[in-house]
Amino acid sequence: MSIEAKFRKLGTDNAPGQEVRQQSAGIEALLRGEKLGGRVVDFSHGDVDAHEPTPGSFDLFSAGVALGGAQAYTEYRGDIAIREQVASRLAAFTGAPVDAANGTIITPGTQGALFLAVAATVSRGDKVAIVQPDYFANRKLVEFFEGEMVPVQLDYVGAGDERAGLDLTQLEDSFKAGAKVFLFSNPNNPAGVVYSADEVRQIASLAGRYGVTVIADQLYSRLRYTGVSYTHLRAEAIDADNVVTIMGPSKTESLSGYRLGVAFGSQTVIGRMEKLQAIVSLRAAGYSQAVLRSWFDEPEGWMAERIRNHQAIRDALLKVLRGIEGAFARTPLAGSYLFPKLPALAIPHADFVKILRLQAGVIVTPGTEFSPLTGDSVRLNFSQDHHAAVAAVERLAILVERYRA
Amino acid sequence: MSIEAKFRKLGTDNAPGQEVRQQSAGIEALLRGEKLGGRVVDFSHGDVDAHEPTPGSFDLFSAGVALGGAQAYTEYRGDIAIREQVASRLAAFTGAPVDAANGTIITPGTQGALFLAVAATVSRGDKVAIVQPDYFANRKLVEFFEGEMVPVQLDYVGAGDERAGLDLTQLEDSFKAGAKVFLFSNPNNPAGVVYSADEVRQIASLAGRYGVTVIADQLYSRLRYTGVSYTHLRAEAIDADNVVTIMGPSKTESLSGYRLGVAFGSQTVIGRMEKLQAIVSLRAAGYSQAVLRSWFDEPEGWMAERIRNHQAIRDALLKVLRGIEGAFARTPLAGSYLFPKLPALAIPHADFVKILRLQAGVIVTPGTEFSPLTGDSVRLNFSQDHHAAVAAVERLAILVERYRA
Repeated sequence: MSIEAKFRKLGTDNAPGQEVRQQSAGIEALLRGEKLGGRVVDFSHGDVDAHEPTPGSFDLFSAGVALGGAQAYTEYRGDIAIREQVASRLAAFTGAPVDAANGTIITPGTQGALFLAVAATVSRGDKVAIVQPDYFANRKLVEFFEGEMVPVQLDYVGAGDERAGLDLTQLEDSFKAGAKVFLFSNPNNPAGVVYSADEVRQIASLAGRYGVTVIADQLYSRLRYTGVSYTHLRAEAIDADNVVTIMGPSKTESLSGYRLGVAFGSQTVIGRMEKLQAIVSLRAAGYSQAVLRSWFDEPEGWMAERIRNHQAIRDALLKVLRGIEGAFARTPLAGSYLFPKLPALAIPHADFVKILRLQAGVIVTPGTEFSPLTGDSVRLNFSQDHHAAVAAVERLAILVERYRA
Repeated sequence: MSIEAKFRKLGTDNAPGQEVRQQSAGIEALLRGEKLGGRVVDFSHGDVDAHEPTPGSFDLFSAGVALGGAQAYTEYRGDIAIREQVASRLAAFTGAPVDAANGTIITPGTQGALFLAVAATVSRGDKVAIVQPDYFANRKLVEFFEGEMVPVQLDYVGAGDERAGLDLTQLEDSFKAGAKVFLFSNPNNPAGVVYSADEVRQIASLAGRYGVTVIADQLYSRLRYTGVSYTHLRAEAIDADNVVTIMGPSKTESLSGYRLGVAFGSQTVIGRMEKLQAIVSLRAAGYSQAVLRSWFDEPEGWMAERIRNHQAIRDALLKVLRGIEGAFARTPLAGSYLFPKLPALAIPHADFVKILRLQAGVIVTPGTEFSPLTGDSVRLNFSQDHHAAVAAVERLAILVERYRA
């Protein structure tokens, strides 16, 4: 593949946060009616001003700076003392051992972990099972390393409430066809669904049978709503060297500005990830690493309150979305994404997304970023100011009516 | 190439800062004499405790955190207001225009910039001209993207004082043979030599004639010693879209703990770099980006003093090194690297490097990291405490005598 072709595929125009670089030429002709006033809400990512970083995070950073060179120049995989703290907490959280020395790497954000994990397991021509819909970078990473994506559908619309909806037959077929890596997010980004214990066990069993390495992106696995049970793949019956789990404090904990992620599990894969990190970015910013000291050690009640606040926003937005005739919105069980399916419109949904920004000050991510089959859906990160978010989704509902087919 | 083979080539055991992961088995049998006491000096990277970060950098970071979401979630290529500040200063420094909107990207360290620049220009089978010796990641990056490295020798030993010593005939031959990318550091890492105006002009002219994209790593181009003149490739007669220049405040300014780098120049290449950054790490840590506001705007006299201090250390270490019979050390004109050639020893130089750490508490980077032809040399980053550095190099000199062939 030529380098031009490779980078053509890596479009970022619709990526969250990149709207500022978008051209809106041609949209004017489609506009109906006037602009809707109201506070701009950028649902493409969470609002860390509305849901502030973990208390004490800046003090930990500041202490890291005071440590000087020892904190600035860590091992490529991160400071060992911090890895030890994090590893023991992640072991407790996920219910399976984590090796601090050889099975843990700190990366620049979970994006960094995902990039390194895919780079460490996928090379040209390798088949990789990818869920549709799932986090848009998954597909792009496979394409960048010239792997072959084998899509596996997640029927989050039709699955009912008990299962995420993964098509396990398709998953097994992809393994039979030679896929050696399976990459998925749980809770699913964008749909917010959590894989059932049965689904996770079947993934483990199939991976074992076919010798597949599984990369489990569990970025949002701490932000779980009332009554939700969560199954950690790495604690199931599966070869520990075939699982890499990825987490980080960028979302629930609002620490994105520090760019921190962690990958843990397979020593083989983590070893490769470190070798690669040495030429990609050397290490996660040394001073930032110090912020991880508070991770999973937040003040009493802090996480419960964060969950409560998000659950209230979720419920309020669901109410507005479900008032739109012909729309569908499954209740997210964890994380802060809503992925409503919109009714048929008189204009392409891609244009509607642009119009939403121009006429209503509402920024969402188009469904096509997550699957070619979800072009009629949009993703909203509802980690926002509660009232501003409700007002923004009300404006979205008004525009749906204005542009309805 | 299988993924196992790809990662085997990416060794990091001898990489700076990774000594902690090294096994020393077998070395014991080679040891002669007792340990030498004295403060451990890690010459594999600069000591940011001895040469502290730019004044005010932490305050800028702190102000970035206070800005909240706007600073945490920047465009992938970095905050536009910061890019504008940096672009105008880099234009003034390098003597050629820098486009803030489309020709500048902020990255996680200069390593991040280098990775993205190579990824954006090199794909499988592409020939890439690489200087020997040069920064070790250059070679590894080309190998990782399955490009073909075409070595071009830098005769820093024999070139005299007026030229860096680049073999321009070899460079042209590599272009004739099809190399479409030339990657080099100026000042050279590890040799500390600065390319003469004539050398830079000839690089520009050859690149123009053969349509080659040049990636110029100018990381150390601010730390220039008395009487040194420096020529910026991008200000010479060369197609601006064929040059990417890389700089950052990690070294001279001791801001490595914030992980910041900048690439500027070719809009084509920078555009690709942003697309890739979107899946590699999203962006340089948002809060860290704020620290760039002080870059090239340090307090009056600060840089002059930093240069003076480093020049004094350089001269003191050169004196010790030149006292070793049979050693050769060219005077670095910029940056903080010394790359002495050691005399013949009774043990392999690779073992001597390990012994130096074990018996003298002196950590250096083996010459083989930079070129297969410089195995008898070691690199020292002399951005250290003055007295500790001198004492450490004196211990090195003692061990050279102890193990001399």
